[in-house]
Amino acid sequence: MDPALVEIVLVRPRHPGNVAAACRAMKNMGLSRLCLVGPPPGLVEPDARALAYGAWDVLDGARVASTLGEAVAPSTLVAGTTGRGVPGAWTPRRLAGEAEARAAPAGLSVVFGPEASGLTSAELALCHVHVHVPTHDDQPSLNLAQAVLLVAYELRLRALASAALVSDEGAPAAPVTAGELEGAVQDLREALLAAGFLDPANPDHILAELRRLLARAGPTPREITLLRGIARQVGWAGRVARGRSPA
Amino acid sequence: MDPALVEIVLVRPRHPGNVAAACRAMKNMGLSRLCLVGPPPGLVEPDARALAYGAWDVLDGARVASTLGEAVAPSTLVAGTTGRGVPGAWTPRRLAGEAEARAAPAGLSVVFGPEASGLTSAELALCHVHVHVPTHDDQPSLNLAQAVLLVAYELRLRALASAALVSDEGAPAAPVTAGELEGAVQDLREALLAAGFLDPANPDHILAELRRLLARAGPTPREITLLRGIARQVGWAGRVARGRSPA
Repeated sequence: MDPALVEIVLVRPRHPGNVAAACRAMKNMGLSRLCLVGPPPGLVEPDARALAYGAWDVLDGARVASTLGEAVAPSTLVAGTTGRGVPGAWTPRRLAGEAEARAAPAGLSVVFGPEASGLTSAELALCHVHVHVPTHDDQPSLNLAQAVLLVAYELRLRALASAALVSDEGAPAAPVTAGELEGAVQDLREALLAAGFLDPANPDHILAELRRLLARAGPTPREITLLRGIARQVGWAGRVARGRSPA
Repeated sequence: MDPALVEIVLVRPRHPGNVAAACRAMKNMGLSRLCLVGPPPGLVEPDARALAYGAWDVLDGARVASTLGEAVAPSTLVAGTTGRGVPGAWTPRRLAGEAEARAAPAGLSVVFGPEASGLTSAELALCHVHVHVPTHDDQPSLNLAQAVLLVAYELRLRALASAALVSDEGAPAAPVTAGELEGAVQDLREALLAAGFLDPANPDHILAELRRLLARAGPTPREITLLRGIARQVGWAGRVARGRSPA
């Protein structure tokens, strides 16, 4: 996909040097959009500047978001990286292959967690797909800039291949942004709580499954309207049924 | 190809830290055979040891050769990396694809030059094929460990695909059949009729939209179970609510 539609999101990176090295890796692969959620101090210090050699435009152009939700709201597809091989996780190559179709029109956010711990379960649950680099079990952990490099490399190869063979497979209806999808997911949350399907003590695990299912489909605005309409009616039925029944 | 048949050859690396980081990148991708032609001093110092964290076996097991010719003599295929896009150069991906057939029986050497200057023309001439990572013109130069990482990554993905442990596409959970999807769609039909969302006179148009949305996502068996569970609870709430309310 168009590199201008890709944003790398670094969540609570601890070391400014790693952010700087990630900027270089991005620029190596033609990416320029960076978002920092909770950036570390020291990004303007000489050490970090040196590690970002030649990629200062990426570092200085980074936008800062206060939460992951805010960071990814403008994107259509949100991919969360994980060092653990979770079931159903995509390889960076598969992400690059699918992003073209699924991240239009508003783009792709690729999210990386803190160096030591990675993204939390709650943060991964906010992501539409999970991405895992299939490293060897004897030394599974990549450093942050290397993980960024590998994902950016796959996106670049794919973009180069697409540019080489410009095809027009017809224009499918454009999927909505992550923020619009999230609106429908939250409506479904309320509805399924009202109907007694979700456990009020722990609704998020199942909700995360629903979010991933819907995000994989890439809903159109029309489909989001449909889902919100269903949620409204189910919420009504749930409130009436549970308000009036012994259960 | 079998990772045991791949040797990474570093020619006159200047900085022990780069050798150490290359060892880590190799081990991340399941490679273990390293050859150093003119190694730098300092490989046993704490700084280098720290950068090779967890990959000391690769570093300590490196063999030393006095010339490139001596280093690559045992191999069947010799690939020399270059930061310049020389005509006919292969991408790392093509190298990984071709190596299987061409590097039998004695294996593949992948040769990396000094950090600043790369391999000389004479050294490149000793190589059978040239390999170039297609970085962006605005920031073409990768550091040594990153170049090793990208080549080792491609070799690993190829080896995994050959071993059929994972395919190039990763290992997504298998989507269900159309019949299984239809079971969930029919459950949702009953539920949304009961909840009063679907018009009993014409439920099929909206149901077809839902079917298309779900089919695009390619639901897993687990997700079908989830959808049927939702349908059961929503159907219950709808029947109770509409049976007991004036509407």
